[in-house]
Amino acid sequence: MRTINHDDLAALTIGATVLGTGGGGDPYIGRLMAEAAVAAHGPITMLAVDELPQEGLVIPAAMIGAPTVIVEKIPNGSEMRKALAALERLLDRKTVAIMSIEAGGLNSIVPLALAAELGLPLVDADSMGRAFPEVQMTSFTIHGVSATPMVLVDDKGNSVTIETINNKWTEALARVATVQMGGSALAAPYPVTTAQVRQAAIRGTMSLAIEIGHIVGTPGQGADERIRRLLERMRGAVLFRGKIRDVLRRTTGGFTRGTATMEGHGPDSGSILRVEFQNENLLAVRDGRPVAMVPDLISVLDQETIRPITTESLTYGQRVVVVTTPCHEVWRTPRGLEIAGPRYFGYEFDYVPFQEGGVA
Amino acid sequence: MRTINHDDLAALTIGATVLGTGGGGDPYIGRLMAEAAVAAHGPITMLAVDELPQEGLVIPAAMIGAPTVIVEKIPNGSEMRKALAALERLLDRKTVAIMSIEAGGLNSIVPLALAAELGLPLVDADSMGRAFPEVQMTSFTIHGVSATPMVLVDDKGNSVTIETINNKWTEALARVATVQMGGSALAAPYPVTTAQVRQAAIRGTMSLAIEIGHIVGTPGQGADERIRRLLERMRGAVLFRGKIRDVLRRTTGGFTRGTATMEGHGPDSGSILRVEFQNENLLAVRDGRPVAMVPDLISVLDQETIRPITTESLTYGQRVVVVTTPCHEVWRTPRGLEIAGPRYFGYEFDYVPFQEGGVA
Repeated sequence: MRTINHDDLAALTIGATVLGTGGGGDPYIGRLMAEAAVAAHGPITMLAVDELPQEGLVIPAAMIGAPTVIVEKIPNGSEMRKALAALERLLDRKTVAIMSIEAGGLNSIVPLALAAELGLPLVDADSMGRAFPEVQMTSFTIHGVSATPMVLVDDKGNSVTIETINNKWTEALARVATVQMGGSALAAPYPVTTAQVRQAAIRGTMSLAIEIGHIVGTPGQGADERIRRLLERMRGAVLFRGKIRDVLRRTTGGFTRGTATMEGHGPDSGSILRVEFQNENLLAVRDGRPVAMVPDLISVLDQETIRPITTESLTYGQRVVVVTTPCHEVWRTPRGLEIAGPRYFGYEFDYVPFQEGGVA
Repeated sequence: MRTINHDDLAALTIGATVLGTGGGGDPYIGRLMAEAAVAAHGPITMLAVDELPQEGLVIPAAMIGAPTVIVEKIPNGSEMRKALAALERLLDRKTVAIMSIEAGGLNSIVPLALAAELGLPLVDADSMGRAFPEVQMTSFTIHGVSATPMVLVDDKGNSVTIETINNKWTEALARVATVQMGGSALAAPYPVTTAQVRQAAIRGTMSLAIEIGHIVGTPGQGADERIRRLLERMRGAVLFRGKIRDVLRRTTGGFTRGTATMEGHGPDSGSILRVEFQNENLLAVRDGRPVAMVPDLISVLDQETIRPITTESLTYGQRVVVVTTPCHEVWRTPRGLEIAGPRYFGYEFDYVPFQEGGVA
């Protein structure tokens, strides 16, 4: 058990955005939300998975929708309370803790704000170890845990409760409802028991994010040194250093999709890196050859500040360092790759894992 | 109180399709469903609105979606039971009767099948006095009754429960969920109290449909005589006699939309009638001039059999009689016209009511 202090909150915001691999929405808004909730309701307690009570409900809370829209439509406390109350009524169980569905910008912080507001602990875990664009892409799905009943609440006061025969149907129905709700909504999917969290969650993601955030944000340390420490901690590597030359981005079907093209400098002079994304970065192609791919993490960092740049914030002229780090081992299993490997996203090649110390 | 016998069931199917003004889905499938349910579970009791108990829930049940799709995806009993159980659990009230949301083909019969299966009475009422394409187009909306909580259930076992701030939001969210569910779903909207039925429902619609069905289906009586009696009962008029020359129809956004063009014969030789529809017939234009329009009823009948032809069944070469009859008075109020007048459907002219004994 630990208390998340003000510095941790700032670090978690940054670290989760690195793990968010471009997705999860703007972390700055999330941090403001969480700080406001902590200021109003007091500090947040974080429990390790093994510290959870034997019984009770754990509710992951998240924003669903295109990050380009999410950043314009900040969720409020009453939406979160409403979603939670609907699930408790439906399942006739009390919530004992809140968790993050994914590590990624806003979506790592929304649960903190909710935990602070409700006086509930946060679990030091998530269900991706990174961020993914679709509802069914979780370690819960890999372990056969249903994503429903799932509640969606919008900023106007509308809500939708979904119950489905599998988690791909959850994604399909939640996505169209989200688009109709204006492109983003607050979601409470995967109402899980503490036993299911022990079985299926990815442990330690929140404390890892805080640790990464402290590395990236260390004042007085040069950018190169911070990148070196970051990659050491995450067992990753630099893919590319360069300048963003072109960004194609469209908000379609409830997702932010697109491509960022970068021209190299320094050791990468003369090379071109193309990063393709669907909310999250999916594929990095160097001079026509894939060099990193989903489910491994691809993060675009600002060259000077080492701050992660989310896909909706990529802009012409940014000077960036692109890094890749290995995904959690659960995503490298056959079932993990079926759910979130390159072929799922429409690429016609098999997954080549990133190996520590070298690029695939 | 009356019992709906086998002949009534056949008559209701036909009569409701006349009132359905082209919409509500194929009545033949509905009749088979209702007959199967009656054969399995016994006859259906129909209560007048004043015979309802003082307290309890009345559930309208209907198919939502494009009729072109609905006829391919017949709902089953377990879907209906599931929707009802979800509403009863949510509202913590028992259902005392089933009603039809609209008079129209399949959608007048689905509630009968449900009533038979559950051993509940059917209310002699609906909320349109005809069929309309969108969820919010009901006399309940006019009286400020919420369409939610509304449950949608598909044939695969998925369900969505919607709660909204107004009934146009219900339509918006239900429509996208329906499209995602494959283009049609079983819906249980407007879970109303018996008091709300007494205040806001359109009374006698089911017995009117049975009466019309008996007129249309009378054996041994000529087509002209049956049309004369039908129009006398409905205070309507023949708009046009002719042959369908062209049908444009597309299934889009969860609706069947299109236009049927007819060339006149007999007294209408040399004239062209164009009927535009969105699930239901909306507008009849004769030689470029509107001659009947929503919310008044426009029904296309087979010239020989006087059977109504639904919009998804209109075909090149059919010889037809097009009739129009006045809508229920509630639709001619300012609020009624705001919800379902020609301007709502995108026409840039005001409603001109059909007057008994002559066309507008």
